[in-house]
Amino acid sequence: MSSEDIKAKIESANKEAVQRVLSSKPFLIDVKPAIEVLPGMNKRSIFHAGPPIEWSKMCGPMKGAIAGTIIFEGWANSWEGAVKLIEEGEIEFSPNHDHEAVGPMAGVISPSLPVMVVKNERYGNINYGRIVENRVQFGAFDEEAVESLRFWAQVLAPAMARALARMRSQGGTGIDLKSIMARALYMGDELHNRPAAGTSLFALTILPYLIETTEDKELLSQIVRYFASNEIFFLCLAMAACKATMNSAREIEYSTLVTAMARNGVEFGIKVSGLGNHWFTGPAGLVRGLYFPGFGSQHANPDMGDSAITETTGIGAFALANSPAILSLVGGTAEDAFKYTRQMQQITTTLNDTFLIPIFDFQGTATGIDIRKVVKTGILPVIDTAIAHKDPGIGMIGAGIVNPPMEAFKSALKEYAAKYKL
Amino acid sequence: MSSEDIKAKIESANKEAVQRVLSSKPFLIDVKPAIEVLPGMNKRSIFHAGPPIEWSKMCGPMKGAIAGTIIFEGWANSWEGAVKLIEEGEIEFSPNHDHEAVGPMAGVISPSLPVMVVKNERYGNINYGRIVENRVQFGAFDEEAVESLRFWAQVLAPAMARALARMRSQGGTGIDLKSIMARALYMGDELHNRPAAGTSLFALTILPYLIETTEDKELLSQIVRYFASNEIFFLCLAMAACKATMNSAREIEYSTLVTAMARNGVEFGIKVSGLGNHWFTGPAGLVRGLYFPGFGSQHANPDMGDSAITETTGIGAFALANSPAILSLVGGTAEDAFKYTRQMQQITTTLNDTFLIPIFDFQGTATGIDIRKVVKTGILPVIDTAIAHKDPGIGMIGAGIVNPPMEAFKSALKEYAAKYKL
Repeated sequence: MSSEDIKAKIESANKEAVQRVLSSKPFLIDVKPAIEVLPGMNKRSIFHAGPPIEWSKMCGPMKGAIAGTIIFEGWANSWEGAVKLIEEGEIEFSPNHDHEAVGPMAGVISPSLPVMVVKNERYGNINYGRIVENRVQFGAFDEEAVESLRFWAQVLAPAMARALARMRSQGGTGIDLKSIMARALYMGDELHNRPAAGTSLFALTILPYLIETTEDKELLSQIVRYFASNEIFFLCLAMAACKATMNSAREIEYSTLVTAMARNGVEFGIKVSGLGNHWFTGPAGLVRGLYFPGFGSQHANPDMGDSAITETTGIGAFALANSPAILSLVGGTAEDAFKYTRQMQQITTTLNDTFLIPIFDFQGTATGIDIRKVVKTGILPVIDTAIAHKDPGIGMIGAGIVNPPMEAFKSALKEYAAKYKL
Repeated sequence: MSSEDIKAKIESANKEAVQRVLSSKPFLIDVKPAIEVLPGMNKRSIFHAGPPIEWSKMCGPMKGAIAGTIIFEGWANSWEGAVKLIEEGEIEFSPNHDHEAVGPMAGVISPSLPVMVVKNERYGNINYGRIVENRVQFGAFDEEAVESLRFWAQVLAPAMARALARMRSQGGTGIDLKSIMARALYMGDELHNRPAAGTSLFALTILPYLIETTEDKELLSQIVRYFASNEIFFLCLAMAACKATMNSAREIEYSTLVTAMARNGVEFGIKVSGLGNHWFTGPAGLVRGLYFPGFGSQHANPDMGDSAITETTGIGAFALANSPAILSLVGGTAEDAFKYTRQMQQITTTLNDTFLIPIFDFQGTATGIDIRKVVKTGILPVIDTAIAHKDPGIGMIGAGIVNPPMEAFKSALKEYAAKYKL
């Protein structure tokens, strides 16, 4: 093929890929224990954020999160017990992304942990999201941390499942996440580090069904208070919606679109539409950000989590201009936020037609990262993120901004050139 | 007194006045029928927005709102019946602001209409706010419009009153409106034309108490759906909170601070701290804005409503930069929003320490309009507002931006010079 022919094929493939991204319709349809829905999950599977990694190479907070999850499952009741089980080869590890799922920070999903079930109503694919909480996913495994998983598994998840079942029994499709996300972007959210409006809008949407299906008033009050005081809640739904969106653009021959960006705390990996299911990786970066009192960059673990699926879809830091309020959390000025948001247009395929930036006179967010543009311009995607302590057992110590390693994009482009004989 | 002495007295008075504004703590403590709480309300009183005006001089939408309210009260059952009653002198009209209250648009409050009861916990004054709805207050008086008042009076208000009573019985002070307002300003609200985040945050705050005190699940669901679909709801609470805030700065000798701005659809009136309870007026302006399909400026009533109490307190259009999303409603560009917001610093006394603008790197909103600065700079306060059809019986036809008449500020300054012998 001539280089003109190949260029036309790439343009056409990317047009198709990004059209799928724009036209996706992710709905929350259910909440179910992972073992019941996640493809490839076995009784002793633990899935995690980012590209594949073996236990011995995992970072501290991911090890801590796995220990916390093993304690939650009741397979062991201490750090030592959990480590023993792992070292005996009892646990199978695998990346969330390779099982249709995403999870924030360590992102650890185990069989009995309920996950959000999100269906892309336009393309039919179903994807899964792990709950967001501020302790286990950051590496803590103390009793209080594990208790937050129990609240989710035993109280909130079953209540949400009942509410969604009621919705379906009334002929509903579930909860339209894209609509909530579009509205939340008008309300100061960028839907990664700040999903506060998304959480409120989601709560008010599901509450009538929770009211109809929850007899215990005290429990109902507790759930409302949980939504009211956990502004970060909606992140797991934004992530699952983004995963369901990007998966519709997977495996389109010739497409140079990035379909996933994810980090395991050691490596940063990307997937590219035209390159199948392969991970292209480089070292996870150090986050530039603000730390909680008593902590600094010397305590910080490198970048971690599947939450960069939001930036992959054109929100998160790609919509930072919508969310100047998070600058008090991640640092920087409003000018920086504007600059990052505009810069992302140079490495993407189109402007989103649903996710808009009112402060840019309603321009769409930059959507559809093209590996060619990243390598050519040298501009790396910008990602909002939280910072975990590098040691297991501690937790969140700050938040900030981070970039992927350029080598992930370069090795993807190299593989692309080899595959398509450029 | 020397002019230096007077200047010092003014500065000191304004410092005291604006300090009261900044340190005010408005809490929603109850919801009660107007007749039970509004000072000076009689069995046949109707209070209205803006400065005093007699029936024959009222604009169409205010006449329509009064007719709708008379039908709601059951004093008549038609436009003709309502007009007959009024022309027989049966109804006493008076401005909300002269009875510790505020109301949006026509702002009409009648004896059995429940009002929000807001207490300034720092200074002890109690003020009242009329509910926001999209029909009667814009001049409609058809059955459906009147029904929206009945829903408020018979369903939502009693439910809220029960929830607030429960809160008090548990030792609570009520609902901290200032805290909700500060958070909502981080979430794309300017709290006048756009109080969407405020409505969500308020709903999630009161819901646990509504759940505890409402037996009927269907009713509870209905209330949640009402909050979820009436983004404008919180405006009445923002207005009442602002009224309770500004009233703490009333009647401070020598202060040139504006304590109220309000319009009756014919005249725009202001009150000034050092000039007692007097209204200074000029003609209400025409709104520059966007119209609903089928309507244009030829159908528009001049500026109307007590809602400019928000701008008087340093929010509303004074925080327009926080709320670029409303530009799709009121027109203009993000640059305009930034310009207006910055310009207001030239006519105000201080920057707010609680109401912040993240996009200006967390600078406070311009707070405390000084009549001297308005007259000296020629810069008029900017106000977000809705537009009512000029004829009674129709309703809302658009939204936009408006300014008060300069002559209100000039006549206030003239009176000030006379009173204080400048």
